[in-house]
Amino acid sequence: MNMTMVEPMLRTHPRADLQHSKDYANALNALALCEQVCTSCADACLGENGDVASLRRCIRTDLDCADVCAATARLIGRQTETPNELIHAQLHACVLACQLCADECETHASMHDHCRLCAETCRFCQERCNFLLGVISSSGVGEEAINPTDSPSLSR
Amino acid sequence: MNMTMVEPMLRTHPRADLQHSKDYANALNALALCEQVCTSCADACLGENGDVASLRRCIRTDLDCADVCAATARLIGRQTETPNELIHAQLHACVLACQLCADECETHASMHDHCRLCAETCRFCQERCNFLLGVISSSGVGEEAINPTDSPSLSR
Amino acid sequence: MNMTMVEPMLRTHPRADLQHSKDYANALNALALCEQVCTSCADACLGENGDVASLRRCIRTDLDCADVCAATARLIGRQTETPNELIHAQLHACVLACQLCADECETHASMHDHCRLCAETCRFCQERCNFLLGVISSSGVGEEAINPTDSPSLSR
Amino acid sequence: MNMTMVEPMLRTHPRADLQHSKDYANALNALALCEQVCTSCADACLGENGDVASLRRCIRTDLDCADVCAATARLIGRQTETPNELIHAQLHACVLACQLCADECETHASMHDHCRLCAETCRFCQERCNFLLGVISSSGVGEEAINPTDSPSLSR
Repeated sequence: MNMTMVEPMLRTHPRADLQHSKDYANALNALALCEQVCTSCADACLGENGDVASLRRCIRTDLDCADVCAATARLIGRQTETPNELIHAQLHACVLACQLCADECETHASMHDHCRLCAETCRFCQERCNFLLGVISSSGVGEEAINPTDSPSLSR
Repeated sequence: MNMTMVEPMLRTHPRADLQHSKDYANALNALALCEQVCTSCADACLGENGDVASLRRCIRTDLDCADVCAATARLIGRQTETPNELIHAQLHACVLACQLCADECETHASMHDHCRLCAETCRFCQERCNFLLGVISSSGVGEEAINPTDSPSLSR
Repeated sequence: MNMTMVEPMLRTHPRADLQHSKDYANALNALALCEQVCTSCADACLGENGDVASLRRCIRTDLDCADVCAATARLIGRQTETPNELIHAQLHACVLACQLCADECETHASMHDHCRLCAETCRFCQERCNFLLGVISSSGVGEEAINPTDSPSLSR
Repeated sequence: MNMTMVEPMLRTHPRADLQHSKDYANALNALALCEQVCTSCADACLGENGDVASLRRCIRTDLDCADVCAATARLIGRQTETPNELIHAQLHACVLACQLCADECETHASMHDHCRLCAETCRFCQERCNFLLGVISSSGVGEEAINPTDSPSLSR
């Protein structure tokens, strides 16, 4: 029994958005993994024998990313009376959290394997969430919301 | 001992943003209250003897709002290496979650006291978070981020 | 990239408990899945066209189980200065939350596929967490804590 | 508008446990404060200019305590079909989390004001949750559960 069960689960919902179940499941699996890996990376950084101070920003971005992924997974795991505008805004914050954490972890990747794995996981989650954002926009709901692909904060 | 302790707590931080401690504390207190009240409102709606189905959207927006407030409080309770761009995006999602939940709860306020109290709490939290958003923008950090007061999603 | 990455991640920790990495990873994967499936089951119950009131207890146990699994995963994903006594108590609460939710969902399994899948997931998570509890006890740490296998609440 | 609103909110619930609303509200207020203060204390420890390594265990117990308080508040904020046995086990874990965090923070209280405030907050939350545990036992529900006041883990 593993996370491949999430898509079948979403499909049993009486109001399932069947057209996008795969995209939602892909994002949910990435979010669950990312929350877990960020939590562990923060703790591994804290446990390093060397200079914990140099990992300050890494611990901070890990903790933030875990919290944002957790909330985002809660929202997109629901399909009853979905408020797409909010889903959009929360996914936007999540894409940003993953990007910031991946960027920071990459700078420590050569030193710490947990940072390397965490950077990869965050990048993967960023892509999955960004893809879902595009799908939600193009499906005609929430199109009045901010398009994050145009946002200066993501175009760096 | 109560939530008035949050501001003194923030001020003991070695990297405290003393200029805005009061604004952060005001938002944190509102977020903690809003998460709690939304959790209780969802559960009270579920426990209503009458037509639970008519409260579907209310339960959904309550649960979403509680989760978004929880993540937002975690982020703004931290002051080490603060990623203002992310704080901005998460506060933006939170303002929206509070607004949607307040709007929905207001439609049930005359029938259910828990919805009336929840609508007031969400509106209060929306205002506090929106104020903090403005303060963060005007302090010169994260100004490149989307200005939520110009967002069509909030100007309705 | 999927949850099989959790065990390698745990093994990169500078203070990894290598002897039990597999057991921790098994529990973490089950917890992440269980939180997700319970969140979706609660929402699917809420979206049922029929009698939502008959699913009240199911929604309640789903929401509780998701919250308890989330906190439990956070704790056991950390390996720095691990407080085994607390891990033990939290795993005990989690085993109970999974058991209650599985028991309730099973009563709706013939009617609703989401309840059937959720019952299976909760039972799986209950077993994984219960196994980890045994491992932690028998490894000599936290043995002064309550042994949940003797608890009347779990021997029913 | 502040946390004093929690008790009136609980009383508007269609299935309110009016006899214990004050005890539940007292615990909820303490839990919300404790989650917030522990989150900030972990971050303040991380931001200290001196030896972050000496605060490792403090950061760990802060993060754990915040997560356990969050889950506990979610559970006891609900009053529909309450599973008292689970409430009992979760409160037991929470009392322990608060105790461990208070004990650790006290050892740094003379050096760091955030640890002093956090120790006081955790102790306060530990007492409120322990009191609620007693009330739930003595009200005749969940009495078959483990009595935490007899637990060796709490009698130190």
